[in-house]
Amino acid sequence: MALLKSFVDVTPDSHFPIQNLPYGVFKPDSNSTPRPAVAIGDSVLDLSAISEAGLFDGPILNGSDCFLQPSLNKFLAMGRPAWKEARSTLQRLLSSTEPSLRDNDVLRRKSFYEMSKVEMVVPMVIGDYTDFFASMHHAKNCGLMFRGPQNAINPNWFRLPIAYHGRASSIVISGTDIIRPRGQGHPQGDSEPYFGPSKKLDFELEMAAVVGPGNELGKPIDVNNAADHIFGLVLMNDWSARDIQAWEYVPLGPFLGKSFGTTVSPWIVTLDALEPFSCQAPKQDPPPLPYLTEKESVNYDISLEVQLKPSGKDESSVITKSNFQNLYWTITQQLAHHTVNGCNLRPGDLLGTGTISGPEPDSYGCLLELTWNGQKPLSMNGTTQTFLQDGDQVTFSGVCKGKFYLHCLDDVSKEVGGKKYLIHIHITIKHLENER
Amino acid sequence: MALLKSFVDVTPDSHFPIQNLPYGVFKPDSNSTPRPAVAIGDSVLDLSAISEAGLFDGPILNGSDCFLQPSLNKFLAMGRPAWKEARSTLQRLLSSTEPSLRDNDVLRRKSFYEMSKVEMVVPMVIGDYTDFFASMHHAKNCGLMFRGPQNAINPNWFRLPIAYHGRASSIVISGTDIIRPRGQGHPQGDSEPYFGPSKKLDFELEMAAVVGPGNELGKPIDVNNAADHIFGLVLMNDWSARDIQAWEYVPLGPFLGKSFGTTVSPWIVTLDALEPFSCQAPKQDPPPLPYLTEKESVNYDISLEVQLKPSGKDESSVITKSNFQNLYWTITQQLAHHTVNGCNLRPGDLLGTGTISGPEPDSYGCLLELTWNGQKPLSMNGTTQTFLQDGDQVTFSGVCKGKFYLHCLDDVSKEVGGKKYLIHIHITIKHLENER
Repeated sequence: MALLKSFVDVTPDSHFPIQNLPYGVFKPDSNSTPRPAVAIGDSVLDLSAISEAGLFDGPILNGSDCFLQPSLNKFLAMGRPAWKEARSTLQRLLSSTEPSLRDNDVLRRKSFYEMSKVEMVVPMVIGDYTDFFASMHHAKNCGLMFRGPQNAINPNWFRLPIAYHGRASSIVISGTDIIRPRGQGHPQGDSEPYFGPSKKLDFELEMAAVVGPGNELGKPIDVNNAADHIFGLVLMNDWSARDIQAWEYVPLGPFLGKSFGTTVSPWIVTLDALEPFSCQAPKQDPPPLPYLTEKESVNYDISLEVQLKPSGKDESSVITKSNFQNLYWTITQQLAHHTVNGCNLRPGDLLGTGTISGPEPDSYGCLLELTWNGQKPLSMNGTTQTFLQDGDQVTFSGVCKGKFYLHCLDDVSKEVGGKKYLIHIHITIKHLENER
Repeated sequence: MALLKSFVDVTPDSHFPIQNLPYGVFKPDSNSTPRPAVAIGDSVLDLSAISEAGLFDGPILNGSDCFLQPSLNKFLAMGRPAWKEARSTLQRLLSSTEPSLRDNDVLRRKSFYEMSKVEMVVPMVIGDYTDFFASMHHAKNCGLMFRGPQNAINPNWFRLPIAYHGRASSIVISGTDIIRPRGQGHPQGDSEPYFGPSKKLDFELEMAAVVGPGNELGKPIDVNNAADHIFGLVLMNDWSARDIQAWEYVPLGPFLGKSFGTTVSPWIVTLDALEPFSCQAPKQDPPPLPYLTEKESVNYDISLEVQLKPSGKDESSVITKSNFQNLYWTITQQLAHHTVNGCNLRPGDLLGTGTISGPEPDSYGCLLELTWNGQKPLSMNGTTQTFLQDGDQVTFSGVCKGKFYLHCLDDVSKEVGGKKYLIHIHITIKHLENER
């Protein structure tokens, strides 16, 4: 069987081949209504136009208004059967051999937009945002810095996916400027606490699961059904003010050290698109309690990197390389744990993984670890730096470098060769504003 | 000047005289659309009917559809001038001397409902819910139990209003059954952690501020303007599973020990109605940093009590009496601190005070403190109890017992006598379901 190809020109290094088709929400211009889309090559395909043309003709989506909404929430609530049908329909419509969209000039002009010319928005209304702490390397490094080697990792960490409730209101889309927060830091001796702009502004390299149907209050989701409640993944930057966080976090956890901004990538890569890049999750020792024990324990092989372009410089440097596989707790364990007490998840909720650090110093997922709390400055192109400076740009990217997979229209994956194939997910964080 | 009286019969012990007029959202029956209301005596007044009749005729609300919404959010976003105008219009319309509603039988039949026959719903869409930790007595007792007398209160507590992000999805209205959560508790020695229904289910006596207009991301609210962003207060029960909480909370704070349910009272008592009961907040030592220093530091004299009706018993016992004045950090300091890092608040956000414990053992605000973590059972009518049992009913009430105040139509308050006057706020928590 030949590789599925689109009639839309997609360069070999594009982030968005027909095998990816990530979902987002865009506005053609700043005055227009937001609408759902998928990315294909350098274009976005307006799903409201496709829906209005009656091309979602499968049994679930036929007649549905889920793509005539300003967010993906209604589609998210419909669950995996609807997601699979939409993917199958879109892969067929976009394929090089299918004439219905390819040969309809009027509809093509109406439904394709140049990606570089549209405005992307946060693709779902996020009712609640939770952030986990699921990389052992990150947990260990933070523990070593703040509590010493004796109890670097608290015993509860190996028993349950630790998390905190995050702030939903300050989640912004990639490209939004982040304003350096003000706040209190530790007092020196008997003096008053420091108050002013954070001196330890940091990024955190994370991904986050976008929740699908969710559950009623009081009805937990079984870990073996948890994947049906995860639509896909975004890249996420959990901006952190380390000085504010260190002073405030005992005993109730992070608050103002985190809530000034969290950035997500505009495109949600679906679990269906990521399926060819799934892999065995790490063995857990001690074995998890029954409610966290999975029949299949799945991670994804997603190479992650962070680039930093210092203020006033022309060049970015790659400052860390990690991988989604560095998570100890899987995203399905995270979701099942979240609901085991009866807590209800709603469509569009966001579950961050926590900082995804690898075992080596060049795979740590934040400046706190990379510079060991500012003690070891980073060297980049002859300059050195510890925490973020005003005007810095931080860029995350995630790439699946799999073997050559065929996504058939019925969504069965099959390995057909040894060629490298890329699925990118990207995020750009623009400059930090000067202190007000 | 005579006391403002309503043409609606209001018994002297009613929670809802014309001086109160708290806001809620109700459904006449379970199939109808939710609509805003105020409470008066034993009735609810449907504000959508009043609005449709054109009786909100002030310059701000005339022609507005803010009361034709299924929640209060649009009204909350309009800010204090709109709130004062609505209060003034409603006090005039409901007064005994004003004929426009009193003498319009058709409109009266359309707009008044018996409170006992309607269904109350959570009155606003809550984007984010934050819970503070603002009673010193509560902080001290928790510290004594878990960290000992040396560092019962962490030094940061006296410098900033400590808080954590809570879970918005599981906030429910008074009367909703709470299901006992399952979760992990501390392992005994080398064994596996406990897993099962929580053995230490608790209430927390709190109130919560309902946010009005709020702020843009990156633009903090000055502490001296913070009151303009608080519409009013509800009673709140931050149900807590102490065994789950104790095992999970290091280092990121409470998560599943709290997120299984939080109950709010149906009626929001406005700051304007509470103004006659305002009082001086406690002196803070050390003095707060400038961004938390208020020109006027205001608390409210609201007597709070908790009643417990054990499963299978006919009688409730009052198990604690506290007062809103026991808060060390004011609600305006809480709000200003929340935004000092640029975090944006949105209309309808909820800011809980944390457990409001007083200094004496009979004024502690939760069973953790009242029973000293289960070591000192409570005696009630000959039975004893530590934490909550299935089928228990918990009822909170708040009462302002002020001197006799006159709320004039222009909302200037004046003391006119020495008679006691009551404003109640009440909440009822029904039984705990059996473990699933």
